Amino acid sequence: MTSSHNLTTAADVRLACRHGELTGQTSGLAPGYAQANLVILPRDWAYDFLGFCRANPKPCPLLDVTEPGDPVPRNSAQDADLRTDVPKYRVWVDGELTDEPTDITDLWRDDFVSFVIGCSFTFETAMLRAGLPVRHIERGCNVPMFRTNVACHPSGRFHGPLVVSMRPLTPADAIRAVQVTSRYPSVHGAPVHLGFPEQIGITDIHKPDYGDMVPVGDNELPVFWACGVTPQAVLMAAKPPFAITHSPGCMFFTDLKDDALTVG
Amino acid sequence: MTSSHNLTTAADVRLACRHGELTGQTSGLAPGYAQANLVILPRDWAYDFLGFCRANPKPCPLLDVTEPGDPVPRNSAQDADLRTDVPKYRVWVDGELTDEPTDITDLWRDDFVSFVIGCSFTFETAMLRAGLPVRHIERGCNVPMFRTNVACHPSGRFHGPLVVSMRPLTPADAIRAVQVTSRYPSVHGAPVHLGFPEQIGITDIHKPDYGDMVPVGDNELPVFWACGVTPQAVLMAAKPPFAITHSPGCMFFTDLKDDALTVG
Repeated sequence: MTSSHNLTTAADVRLACRHGELTGQTSGLAPGYAQANLVILPRDWAYDFLGFCRANPKPCPLLDVTEPGDPVPRNSAQDADLRTDVPKYRVWVDGELTDEPTDITDLWRDDFVSFVIGCSFTFETAMLRAGLPVRHIERGCNVPMFRTNVACHPSGRFHGPLVVSMRPLTPADAIRAVQVTSRYPSVHGAPVHLGFPEQIGITDIHKPDYGDMVPVGDNELPVFWACGVTPQAVLMAAKPPFAITHSPGCMFFTDLKDDALTVG
Repeated sequence: MTSSHNLTTAADVRLACRHGELTGQTSGLAPGYAQANLVILPRDWAYDFLGFCRANPKPCPLLDVTEPGDPVPRNSAQDADLRTDVPKYRVWVDGELTDEPTDITDLWRDDFVSFVIGCSFTFETAMLRAGLPVRHIERGCNVPMFRTNVACHPSGRFHGPLVVSMRPLTPADAIRAVQVTSRYPSVHGAPVHLGFPEQIGITDIHKPDYGDMVPVGDNELPVFWACGVTPQAVLMAAKPPFAITHSPGCMFFTDLKDDALTVG
């Protein structure tokens, strides 16, 4: 078992996955490299999903899209193999989660299109560098995520609810967080909501639909960002016959640097 | 009386003031030109005030500072005369408001230093262009302003409370307003607070200390920006023997274009 301390570059992490030495969460590994959400669909469904991402850039900011059958995301990690280089995958059949393998080589088809989607880990690094607290990192748990009553813009057969992640912040820190994360539009960008969870259909801020609960102080606002788990909620709603994603928290490492994803 | 409809440039507005044809509020005149707050102090007090502005750039963003005795703000309006070109002034003796003349030529001294300070009118124009509502403009009244319990950073003999202006916005609009106004650091920039008025010492959001009340909807957050009225609260606290400011709402017109004050 390779120590995660040796995983200093994105390529290191990908090789550890490829060799079966890394099968769990990737938070904190190879700092500075942009981690990504992954959605793999047959070509027949890929056009609708590409349209869905275009119509919903906040939850689904595309970093890369492969040619059908090509397991290499050539614009984000030229040495990668998407069949082996993710710690853990999720297999979806007719919208149902059926398996969580660590390698999908046996499942690969020459009509598979892979979508590499920006991840909030990138802007969390920027928040921490700016001196902003990130509660779930402080507590060593997963970020709380909620299905909202906000519908994504439908595209072809894809439709479903926006999923958001939540980070509690004081008002001044919330303002600063808007500024910091606005500079990262390709990894969800600015928050989509703050202050009134019930306005977006969240009835209990302490009962997330995914991830872990974190407390919100009386002097804090819950701040919500569009979340890369949205595509998984959408797959469950649209029920394509076959799809593969990463397992939440077990992200794909691109060679893109976090700092290369800023604007402004 | 010149019709305000003819006042299309900053120079037009200044000349109308100089000729006694404009003695009231300047909101909406000569669109596109940056209006400004004005503070005039004897040289003996100017150093402390310059330090105060440096230490408190959000309420006191300096657009220009004149040489002692020079009534021309040479970096912001080369043809202006600060003794005549403001619609209405306020005269302060020992921290007390004593007069509101429309011309200060007779009061001018060769040791007067003038501070030209950015005004929120500039970022309100940007908000409106971005499709964001500005409640007090919709209602045709003055912006509500509040003294807070947040102390400005003291400098020499100057000290006092931060004064903030308030605009109610829905959460999504508040996020967008942070983005839009962050691009205007020289006219107060991003908000300083949102959501919890009591955290900054405001006990009744419907009772402003200056300006007019505007309603805050149940689905809205009160959003607070540092305000150019702060220097007047500071003059009342520090009590210099003599000072002159503009009268609130009756601003000085610079030749600077609003669009020239953006960053990012």
